[in-house]
Amino acid sequence: MAVSVCRRAHFNAAHRLYNPKWTDEKNQEVFGKCNNYNYHGHNYELEVWVTGEVDEETGYVIDLGYLRDVIKTEVEDRFDHKNLNLDTEEFKNLIPTAENISIVIWNKLRSRLENKFELKVRLYETPRNFVEYGG
Amino acid sequence: MAVSVCRRAHFNAAHRLYNPKWTDEKNQEVFGKCNNYNYHGHNYELEVWVTGEVDEETGYVIDLGYLRDVIKTEVEDRFDHKNLNLDTEEFKNLIPTAENISIVIWNKLRSRLENKFELKVRLYETPRNFVEYGG
Amino acid sequence: MAVSVCRRAHFNAAHRLYNPKWTDEKNQEVFGKCNNYNYHGHNYELEVWVTGEVDEETGYVIDLGYLRDVIKTEVEDRFDHKNLNLDTEEFKNLIPTAENISIVIWNKLRSRLENKFELKVRLYETPRNFVEYGG
Amino acid sequence: MAVSVCRRAHFNAAHRLYNPKWTDEKNQEVFGKCNNYNYHGHNYELEVWVTGEVDEETGYVIDLGYLRDVIKTEVEDRFDHKNLNLDTEEFKNLIPTAENISIVIWNKLRSRLENKFELKVRLYETPRNFVEYGG
Amino acid sequence: MAVSVCRRAHFNAAHRLYNPKWTDEKNQEVFGKCNNYNYHGHNYELEVWVTGEVDEETGYVIDLGYLRDVIKTEVEDRFDHKNLNLDTEEFKNLIPTAENISIVIWNKLRSRLENKFELKVRLYETPRNFVEYGG
Amino acid sequence: MAVSVCRRAHFNAAHRLYNPKWTDEKNQEVFGKCNNYNYHGHNYELEVWVTGEVDEETGYVIDLGYLRDVIKTEVEDRFDHKNLNLDTEEFKNLIPTAENISIVIWNKLRSRLENKFELKVRLYETPRNFVEYGG
Repeated sequence: MAVSVCRRAHFNAAHRLYNPKWTDEKNQEVFGKCNNYNYHGHNYELEVWVTGEVDEETGYVIDLGYLRDVIKTEVEDRFDHKNLNLDTEEFKNLIPTAENISIVIWNKLRSRLENKFELKVRLYETPRNFVEYGG
Repeated sequence: MAVSVCRRAHFNAAHRLYNPKWTDEKNQEVFGKCNNYNYHGHNYELEVWVTGEVDEETGYVIDLGYLRDVIKTEVEDRFDHKNLNLDTEEFKNLIPTAENISIVIWNKLRSRLENKFELKVRLYETPRNFVEYGG
Repeated sequence: MAVSVCRRAHFNAAHRLYNPKWTDEKNQEVFGKCNNYNYHGHNYELEVWVTGEVDEETGYVIDLGYLRDVIKTEVEDRFDHKNLNLDTEEFKNLIPTAENISIVIWNKLRSRLENKFELKVRLYETPRNFVEYGG
Repeated sequence: MAVSVCRRAHFNAAHRLYNPKWTDEKNQEVFGKCNNYNYHGHNYELEVWVTGEVDEETGYVIDLGYLRDVIKTEVEDRFDHKNLNLDTEEFKNLIPTAENISIVIWNKLRSRLENKFELKVRLYETPRNFVEYGG
Repeated sequence: MAVSVCRRAHFNAAHRLYNPKWTDEKNQEVFGKCNNYNYHGHNYELEVWVTGEVDEETGYVIDLGYLRDVIKTEVEDRFDHKNLNLDTEEFKNLIPTAENISIVIWNKLRSRLENKFELKVRLYETPRNFVEYGG
Repeated sequence: MAVSVCRRAHFNAAHRLYNPKWTDEKNQEVFGKCNNYNYHGHNYELEVWVTGEVDEETGYVIDLGYLRDVIKTEVEDRFDHKNLNLDTEEFKNLIPTAENISIVIWNKLRSRLENKFELKVRLYETPRNFVEYGG
């Protein structure tokens, strides 16, 4: 009787898509406007899905207050109102595409949840572009 | 060639999270504001997903008019504008968390659908907290 | 050069529409399901609009952090996860329709804002029913 | 390390649900208002989900610019501002239910994507009725 | 102490923008894809705003149940699942642009509301194009 | 018989709130996280409202295709995927708050519209913070 529960969160950040091994021309060709030298930015909307058994005593899969605090510590405090390329360790050497951001977030949250839970994250970069990662 | 079809519905209800086996202190510690003695409430948004083969004659997986009527009878007429703890049989002895509400709704809808269909429900308690259950 | 700025907030509450001067029959006739004896509830979404001149030094009409704190103190702390009829002074003798809730909220916020600002509130009771009040 | 990426698109179209093998009475009984002789219409919102490995060089699963162009050619140019029954080859002999439209779109997109990718489409016919198809 | 209350509704319809006094070329030039000979369609979302004093006895500006019934009779029953050009009297000789549809709806609703109320309608033709009319 | 028509658009940009006349401490105190030295960013959603008489020949207040092109030239081409502080002339010496961005956009669009039209813009910086300016 596994139920999935979801908590939404968000953070605003600047980023630039750029592969330092490539020439400027190749970066422009592959990443286009997302390669803008001085960065651009997004309102990232995050859905964190945790799947597990419902606890009979509480009726909860997981305490959403705990989940909210984990998301705050691991995601919002780290990435909100930041430049992902310049202000974070995670994306110093990793291109901050939505795909890579979702993997980084998943890994951080995974380490804070008990093994009995399954975890999936969905990240909206814009209302028209979004990604999903489940490990 | 299985296709999933979804119908959205909604209901407004009051509830309180409370485990009668526990002290008031423990209830407050676990459920916080959701334990408010005089109840609080939500606009519940429900997605009902039915998966099956597409009928060649109709182009439908299932008649959505039938599905709408089943949702009305089993969910809306029962829970809309109600106090889940006081006005319903289902939650007299079951804590009305979003997880438990989704299981109750799934069971009711499951019994009204042919076995050839798969069923999943998603229940939004608020725009930021929601759950999903598929049996 | 007046600009309007808006901050959204939300709170969840139970309520019941009921006029104590009327018979049960009349209450049922006028308020229907909203008259349910044991209450029902909503996710209230609130928009607070403040209009004023843009400050040249800050580029702000008003510090949205201040506005957020005022909304938290005057609205969220007072009404979130409450039964409006039973848990609040404001609706002990006032029917908690969306219209009356918006007027109560407007009056509370008005008293916390400088006179140079215009104020308007919009309150969503459900995604299909909402009200607006500007004094 | 498979990640799913989604691109949203939309198109507006007229359609009519009608099975030419049936009598008018049977069509009316099964399809109701959707059988209106002179057509009605919808704003179709489309989500295209592509699942694959993240490319280390780009941080992308797939170039969303390429995906956007494929959706434009295969879906928008073909169906936007069209009468699905009269203006398209695809629905000359196929009832344009949301189920069938999603299968047609999936087949068109599948042929334009490398085999290494998984594909799923979700089609919103209205905000309350939608379907999903993954092959 | 005037408060505005809003009720949302929706209808799906086919239409075509076409001025019979013009040549086909001019119609194509002015209306482009919206001139498609065989029609296209939309999910129209309607907001009906009524402004008036709050009744002390009910806490209501207007009975939203009455407003819902008026919208059903005057708008939904007339236009839902219809071809606006072919199936309605209103647009036999009037181009069914969003502007004209909003004026037609406003006139119909105005005649069903007491003079003490102000009326405004907002009509979403798509999520990106919408209009507003207040008489 | 004035009708208002609205067209939505969007752009993604990085920015930083910072007054060069102030000390770092004062900037931090006033602008908080929005003062982040390396910028952060947003998905800006823009609504452009134009009010005027409905043309009898077209049924339009204004050709939305023209309006879309003006928004593209004046707003999207200028600000999309840009760093507002570094990449634009407009915000070299003007703090890019939502208030100031809306005034800049309004002025640009105003100069491209005939005098007979009224103009209002609404700019969403996040789903919870937005501004409106009408000249």
